[in-house]
Amino acid sequence: MDIELQLTVENLLARYVHALDNDRLEEWPQFFVQTGSYRIVTAENYERGLPLPIVYADSRAMLRDRVSALRHANVYEAQRYRHAVSATLVERQDAHTVRAVSHFQVLRIMHTGETAIFASGRYLDRIRLNGDGGAAQFEEKIVVCDSRRFDTLLAIPL
Amino acid sequence: MDIELQLTVENLLARYVHALDNDRLEEWPQFFVQTGSYRIVTAENYERGLPLPIVYADSRAMLRDRVSALRHANVYEAQRYRHAVSATLVERQDAHTVRAVSHFQVLRIMHTGETAIFASGRYLDRIRLNGDGGAAQFEEKIVVCDSRRFDTLLAIPL
Amino acid sequence: MDIELQLTVENLLARYVHALDNDRLEEWPQFFVQTGSYRIVTAENYERGLPLPIVYADSRAMLRDRVSALRHANVYEAQRYRHAVSATLVERQDAHTVRAVSHFQVLRIMHTGETAIFASGRYLDRIRLNGDGGAAQFEEKIVVCDSRRFDTLLAIPL
Repeated sequence: MDIELQLTVENLLARYVHALDNDRLEEWPQFFVQTGSYRIVTAENYERGLPLPIVYADSRAMLRDRVSALRHANVYEAQRYRHAVSATLVERQDAHTVRAVSHFQVLRIMHTGETAIFASGRYLDRIRLNGDGGAAQFEEKIVVCDSRRFDTLLAIPL
Repeated sequence: MDIELQLTVENLLARYVHALDNDRLEEWPQFFVQTGSYRIVTAENYERGLPLPIVYADSRAMLRDRVSALRHANVYEAQRYRHAVSATLVERQDAHTVRAVSHFQVLRIMHTGETAIFASGRYLDRIRLNGDGGAAQFEEKIVVCDSRRFDTLLAIPL
Repeated sequence: MDIELQLTVENLLARYVHALDNDRLEEWPQFFVQTGSYRIVTAENYERGLPLPIVYADSRAMLRDRVSALRHANVYEAQRYRHAVSATLVERQDAHTVRAVSHFQVLRIMHTGETAIFASGRYLDRIRLNGDGGAAQFEEKIVVCDSRRFDTLLAIPL
């Protein structure tokens, strides 16, 4: 077991969910390499091999566009989100790349104070260890959601 | 603090919950030593010292039987489960054995997309470090559930 | 990345939530240095810089008083709580002090068996590494709650 690798991946995931939950969405694209891809899919479609992402981006520019859209839509402002990440399994691919699978869960806290489970599932990540400035960054992040209810899932990045 | 021991235990728990949530139930018995025991109990009974497990198995063969029963019952297929494990405390017993206590939580995602908290509680584990093929395996796993509602708890292993 | 520091902090947090959820409240003050401070605030007030904690204590003696009050009130006994902690980010301040930020979530399990999300948010911790007996202890713990509903939040320490 490569202890440092494990903790490097867990640290990347921790910084990622802190940025999202603290509404620092402008930092979100920087967790990805320049040509990084991001997809949200349902577990059902993922298991059937159906290429029907709910959200899709294959560059940092597209991620930035998405943040702009969210900022202008403004609909999500009254809410808070709280991610939890656990059970991260890491597998080295080569000298510069690892794959990681984690369980996640997101709570949504409404302005009224009500809290509900917003999403749960798995993060399937391919991570470049020596990205910008030597930091670990996502080459590919597939967010596999357990539920197929997606009307509200478009609110924030997962 | 023994860093490698801590991460070895966390890795075992992570692999365990991934197998369950990915519906690889046939692998479940292999997380236990041949004579491994598995119990689900309520916190209430556990604290009172009452030996009344909801589910009980004391060998890999019994665990396999349980998987067969679940596969034939087939009732749980329309649902998904998502485990989270955290706050793992590890204590070495001897050269080959550790005890670990963790908090867990399981979400259930219905076919309709609705998500609910299915179970929560503690894993009380006795782990053999050098099990089959040198891997860590459970000698004893006691799943202490916070709630005493158990009508649905029989669906999948926890 | 300082692996040992990371795991020392995660271990402190794990021991802390185990003590709370196992109803060992008398141990709670000992997770703090003698002059340790503890606050529960809403995210809304915290972000606005409003100094209006829901709960406030600035010494171990005050924490002990709070435990006594809870023990005498006795209202919470029929319930159980289950904390989850994740995404812990650690930053060393000096030779003896670190800052840590974590995500937390607390479930409440009623006597009837019903489970609900009780609280979620962030732990903002300043930790002394060489506290009593050389153990890590909180110098300051700010519990920033996502929700502003607090009627029930006074039940147990978070």
